[in-house]
This record gives sequence, structure tokens and C-alpha cells, in this order.
Amino acid sequence: MTANELIRKKRDGTSLSSGELQFMIDGFVNGSIPDYQMSSFLMATYFRGMSPEETREFTRLMLHSGSVIDLSKIPGVKVDKHSTGGVGDKISLLLAPIVAACGVPVPMISGRGLGHTGGTLDKLESIPGFSTSVSIGEYKKVIAEVGAVMIGQTEEIAPADKKMYALRDVTATVESIPLIAGSIMSKKLAEGIDALVLDVKTGRGAFMPTYEMAAELATALVGIGNGFGKKTIGFITAMDHPLGYMIGNWLEVVESVECLRGKDVRDIMELTYTLGGAMIMLGKKAQSIEEGIERCKEVVKNGKAYEKFLQLVKRQGGDVSFIEHFEKYPRSKYSGEIKSAETGFITGIDSLELGLAGIGLGAGRTKVDDVIDPKAGIRLTKKVGDAVAAGETVAIIYTDNKSAVNPASERIMNSFAFSSSKPIPKPLIISRVDENGVTPFTL
Amino acid sequence: MTANELIRKKRDGTSLSSGELQFMIDGFVNGSIPDYQMSSFLMATYFRGMSPEETREFTRLMLHSGSVIDLSKIPGVKVDKHSTGGVGDKISLLLAPIVAACGVPVPMISGRGLGHTGGTLDKLESIPGFSTSVSIGEYKKVIAEVGAVMIGQTEEIAPADKKMYALRDVTATVESIPLIAGSIMSKKLAEGIDALVLDVKTGRGAFMPTYEMAAELATALVGIGNGFGKKTIGFITAMDHPLGYMIGNWLEVVESVECLRGKDVRDIMELTYTLGGAMIMLGKKAQSIEEGIERCKEVVKNGKAYEKFLQLVKRQGGDVSFIEHFEKYPRSKYSGEIKSAETGFITGIDSLELGLAGIGLGAGRTKVDDVIDPKAGIRLTKKVGDAVAAGETVAIIYTDNKSAVNPASERIMNSFAFSSSKPIPKPLIISRVDENGVTPFTL
Repeated sequence: MTANELIRKKRDGTSLSSGELQFMIDGFVNGSIPDYQMSSFLMATYFRGMSPEETREFTRLMLHSGSVIDLSKIPGVKVDKHSTGGVGDKISLLLAPIVAACGVPVPMISGRGLGHTGGTLDKLESIPGFSTSVSIGEYKKVIAEVGAVMIGQTEEIAPADKKMYALRDVTATVESIPLIAGSIMSKKLAEGIDALVLDVKTGRGAFMPTYEMAAELATALVGIGNGFGKKTIGFITAMDHPLGYMIGNWLEVVESVECLRGKDVRDIMELTYTLGGAMIMLGKKAQSIEEGIERCKEVVKNGKAYEKFLQLVKRQGGDVSFIEHFEKYPRSKYSGEIKSAETGFITGIDSLELGLAGIGLGAGRTKVDDVIDPKAGIRLTKKVGDAVAAGETVAIIYTDNKSAVNPASERIMNSFAFSSSKPIPKPLIISRVDENGVTPFTL
Repeated sequence: MTANELIRKKRDGTSLSSGELQFMIDGFVNGSIPDYQMSSFLMATYFRGMSPEETREFTRLMLHSGSVIDLSKIPGVKVDKHSTGGVGDKISLLLAPIVAACGVPVPMISGRGLGHTGGTLDKLESIPGFSTSVSIGEYKKVIAEVGAVMIGQTEEIAPADKKMYALRDVTATVESIPLIAGSIMSKKLAEGIDALVLDVKTGRGAFMPTYEMAAELATALVGIGNGFGKKTIGFITAMDHPLGYMIGNWLEVVESVECLRGKDVRDIMELTYTLGGAMIMLGKKAQSIEEGIERCKEVVKNGKAYEKFLQLVKRQGGDVSFIEHFEKYPRSKYSGEIKSAETGFITGIDSLELGLAGIGLGAGRTKVDDVIDPKAGIRLTKKVGDAVAAGETVAIIYTDNKSAVNPASERIMNSFAFSSSKPIPKPLIISRVDENGVTPFTL
């Protein structure tokens, strides 16, 4: 068996056996298979895909390239959520405390933002003092004490994925369903979860722009999760417009906290409650998603979710005084209002364009080592469906970079679409994906 | 412009501009683009192909990564032949002296054998003393003096191709029409030729197993040649059965010399005369291929071609006494006769199997650094269409490796197919490919 033969096999459309995949992955990790053979294999995989069995085996090998955290000593059914990423997607910040407050432990290993989408780690780290790099021992302690923990990928978790992702990132082999699925699931399965809820986004600001691709990815992810005996439910959700009003790291913490305190931002709470309801059901604290949603609503209403959030922030080193007094937080040097050029109804706010505008302001990264300004971002003052008059403010930008103000303002202005008639709302949560396949989502 | 963007562009099926291809190739040669990005690009090219303009530009950039030899001071239209390789394909050994004897200079840079196909350099080097590694200055002198020269690729010729081929060889990206075409033509165009005849083989023992792929490759090669102002004619020829009776380096020299002395081995001479006729026409020493064929026949008949061969061998350091007295050559330690198990007509001799059997005997390589035994090989005593009786000898093998005798004998035995009725002969030269496209070949 040689790497060249296995690349050829994949190139010609044949599925690789478990032993063959192991030869490739082990060799790649230990250096006996050079990057130039792996990148050729990855490109062949981009074109040929992998069978469901092959994808599961690929994931297993990536998973076992590192440690699998054992949380079996912690009571309860441990449930996490993973989102494929969007613009203004701060749902993890709400879900972890809400679900934990309902008695379901949430062990969460998240990533950083790259390109137009944000990352949970960057948002958490905008809270002064909050530490996301903790040891696996500390990770276990925090979840035992708080019922939730939110950290970044450690060296022990799926090192094969870490090495492979770095290669994919520079060889145009990121956008492959089995490679994405293996990368996501090898990390999630290493967390010590018993069950998983997935938010696979589709639309302009999503990683998977078409519904068909999102459904294919969701199906692959759910198949892998269930194949590993971890009950997995996926949702395909719309990412045409940003979620909520805030885009930018600290701004999204503020909006999340406001929602945890009871503010009803429609799209944020609809998605939070649905994903949370599914997590509560999987965590055996409710019989159905609907009942799980009721539990979630209760802990928001009675303040337990907000208390859990403060507890988690404090436990991971964050200064809760900034959460309790937003006005303590430093302000951006520059701000600017974007005003509507038209009178009518807003029919679209292009989330991809807003994400890219956010990068310009300092809220995001184009390269992994770019430094983020936690204060920077965009606050929408209007959402899709709202009526506006010409000259009315639709968004406010915040940045320390003066030269970014004009280009970002123009970009944001052009990202709004208008109509004289009120648009018909489109569903936010489109489909549910589980062992029965993809079905339209209704409560 | 980044390599990652260009890989993505190719992956998504977009043609690259001249500047973009130059960025990739220059970067690859100077090391700023690492092997892992180039191999991913090559695999994307395997799947997406290249447009004719892109292939021509790719070839031009490969060509100009090194020296282009200038033979303009040498009088006459310089014409070479290139074959995509086959089993028993010793045609270059006959063509160079025949065409040179007709007054058309033949500058020929050839390759070594790899896998089941042989290489002209290995055959020439089986002649004691014959040197194929000469400087470009010496190359020019030999062609000026002899009218023909046969050497191997030098460091100066298309270094980008040399580096890229080494990478393709270990990343399963060899079998791509534009990459093959660019590799062949960048080397041929560097030789200093004015015109080119191509022998693109199809069938079991060929690099391009199907006729369609051979036609596609021939079309690409002819398009590039003509695009560079070098009049190019291609022929698609059958490589289902070995050419002639001899397979193995010195054995093929012997058979070539016998033919140059006037022996009429049907398939060898049919192919030699047709390719030679086309070369003479392109070299302006005949009005048509038919007339060119007559010129070739004359120089074989009057001994001038054989004399030219002796002159070339001597000029490149070879000991002609071995050519004049075959019995001087060392003998293999072991030989064995393969006897027919059936009575009837031979309907097939699988050239791929015979090529592989030849490797086992020591006549070929599986890796570039394998050492060849020039004496080793196979002598067929029967050809397709011949009648045989059970027990009659159909082939004799020669080797110094005793343990290779039995497996090679069995392999060769199994490569023969028999029938009770005489098979209808199939054409050896199937199609002609030129600026008018692919047309059935008839004289």
C-alpha cells in the first residue's frame, strides 16, 4: 500500500477501506506521508466525496488521533450544540446558560471567527478576564461545578484535524462535505458529549450557500453522530440576514445578555428556544422539543439563565461588572450612522456583506493571526420587514479605524434592499434532520 | 493573487489566464509555491482539464522555464518524432538514421522506460559505449555532422516539467491530457525542431488505453505544436500487441539493425515507413507522405540508412563492432522457451502483460532508479495471425535472474489468445491527426 495508490483509488471514485484511511491519516500525522500527497488526496476527495461509511471511519480516525474526553463521572446527559456559523450568530452565548439552568450539562468547545462569520471564542474573550484556554482537567471541573463550560480547541483534541485543516485552508479543499463533516464531528465527539444539536445554516451569509448543500452536510453530520451512538438532531436554518441587531464581539455579548435578561429579539429567541428545546429533550429533561422550549422560557423568565451566565463568566475568570454595567466598557473612537436612501419596507439585509463590512471595522479576521477589536461592529436599528423613511437611521457602526468608516458605511448601505410593499416573512427554521431524514420543521 | 485562489479557480472549472498560470509555474520553480499547493492544483487540473488556449500557454511557460535550443544555423527543416510509448516500440532507432539518410536533420531528445513501456535511451545505452548524456554544445555538433542526434533530457531543458513530473508521479496526477501534452511538448519544442511527427498509441499496452483518450491527447499535442508554428502531424496507432518480435533493450537494437539491413518485419516497417514518410514530407524532401515513404525505402535498400546508424553510434561513443557482430554481445545466464498449449491461430498477444513480464526479467523498471539488465527480454517466435501447433515454441525469454523464469513464462503463456479460425488483421495505423482534425488513415 502506497499513498500514491490510495490517492489514485480516491481519484477514480473507489471508497477507501478503514485500513487504507488509517494509512493516510496516521502517515499524515507522523509525517511519513508528506503534505503534497495529502493535499492531492484532499482535492481528489473534494471531487469524489466519501461514502457514509467512509465519512464515519474518516471521522473516527481523526477523533482518535487525539484524546477523547471522558465526562462519564459527571451526572446527566451531556448535550452540546454546534452551528456552522453565521453573521450575528450569538446563540451559543444564550444556549449554554439556558440549557445548563434547566439541568442539562453543556460541554462546549468552540472556534474563532474567520472570514465574514464570527466565532464564539472571540465573543467570550471580549469580556475582560474571560479565559477560553483551559486544561482538560479544568474543563471537567468547570462543567461539574457550573453545568456548562465554554473553551477553545486544545492540543489534545483531534490533532489530525488541526494539521489537515491548516492544509485545506491553503489548498482550496475546505468546501467538501465529508471533510467538513469529519472535521466538525471529530472535535465534537472528543468533548465528552452524549448528544448533539446541530444548526446548519443556509443562505447568503452561510458557509453552505444553497439549501441542498446544507441538507447534504446536515445529513452527513447527523449520520456520523448517530453512528457513534450520540443521539444527534440537526436543524437547517436561514442565514440570509444577520441574527438579531448586533454584529461584533462585545456588541453580541451585550445583545445576548439583554436577551438572557428577558428582551425578546424575535429571531434570536426563536432559534435559541428551538435549539434549546431540542437539547433539553436530548438531555432527558423534557419529553418533546415543545416541552423543552417551555423549560427554556421558564429559566429566562425567572432569571436562572442569566444567573447561570454570570456564574459561568465568573468561573472562567471574566469580570461580571462589565456584564452588569455595560457603560463601564470602553467605547470605539469612531461611530457613524447609516441612513436609508429610500422610503418603504426593508426586504433584505445581506448578511455576507455585513460580515465583510464588520471585518473592515475590526470585528473579524481575514487571516487566522489577525487581531480583533472587541468593541468594533455594527448595530442595526432596523430589521427585515420594518418600514423606514428616507433619511432614517438603519444601522450604526463602531470602529477605532477612521479610514474604515466610509467604505464600511457604503458597503452596509448597499446591503439593504427595499420595496414599497411589506415582505412576506420567510421561516427561520426550515428543516429538521434526524435518523428519519430531512423533514420540514414545524412545532 | 494567491496560489489558493488560483487552485480554487481551477477547481471550480474556470480557465486561468496567462498571468495566473505564470504565477503558479514561476512560484513552483522558485519555491514560493510549495509542493502541497501545486499537487492540489494538479489534481484539480486532472478533474477540470484545461482549455486549448490554457494548455498552449501552460506549455509555453514550461518550455521557457529552461533553454530553447537554437538549431537555426543548421541547414534544413529539422524534424523529430515522439511516441507516447509502447511495448517493443523501437521505431525511433530506425527512424533517426533513415530520415537523416534522406537529408532531413533529426534532433531527438528521448526518455527512459518506466513501467511496462520501454525507453529509447535505455535501448541506445545497451550498445557498449553509447553516451546519451551530452552537453547542448555537443548535441549541436553531432546533428551538424551526422544529421541526427539522440540524447536524454538535460538540466537546461524544461526544468519546470522535470520538477512537476516528479510531483505528478507520486500524487496520482500523471493521467491528465493537458498535463501530459504540456510535458511532452515543452520538451519537444526545446529541442530546436521545425516540425514534429507524433505516434500516439492506443490499446492494452498504451499509456492511453482507449481510442477516444488517444484522439484527445493527439488533438491536444497537434494543437500545441501548430500553435507554436511547428508543423505537427499525429498518428493514432494500435498498441494491442508488441511491435516486432523483440522486447528488451539489446534485443530491440538487434531487431532494429536487422530491419535497417533490410529485414522486412511487417508491423515495424509499416510504422517506420509511414512515420518516416511524414517526417520527410515535413522536412520538405518529399511532396507527400507516399513520396516520403519511397525515399525511406530507397535508403534502407541502398544501405545508406544502416551506414547512417553506424555513423551515429560511432559519433556518440558506441562500439559498432557489437552492431556488426551481434555474437560478441554477452548472453543472459538463463533462457526458456514458452510453448503453445493449443493448436490454432494466435488472435492476441497482450502487450501490457508482455511489458510487465519484461520488467520481471530485468528489461524494465518499476521505479526510476531501478537498474536495467540490457540483455534481458523476450523474443517472440510467433505473431498475431500465425498458426501454431500445441507444443510449438511461441516465445523465448532471456534473464540473469533465475527466480524470474517461471513467473515470466507463465505470464507470457497467459498473454496469448488462440482461435480455430485465422483472425482478420486490424489496422496498425488507425488515424491521422492534423490541423484538419482526426481522419481515418489511408495511403
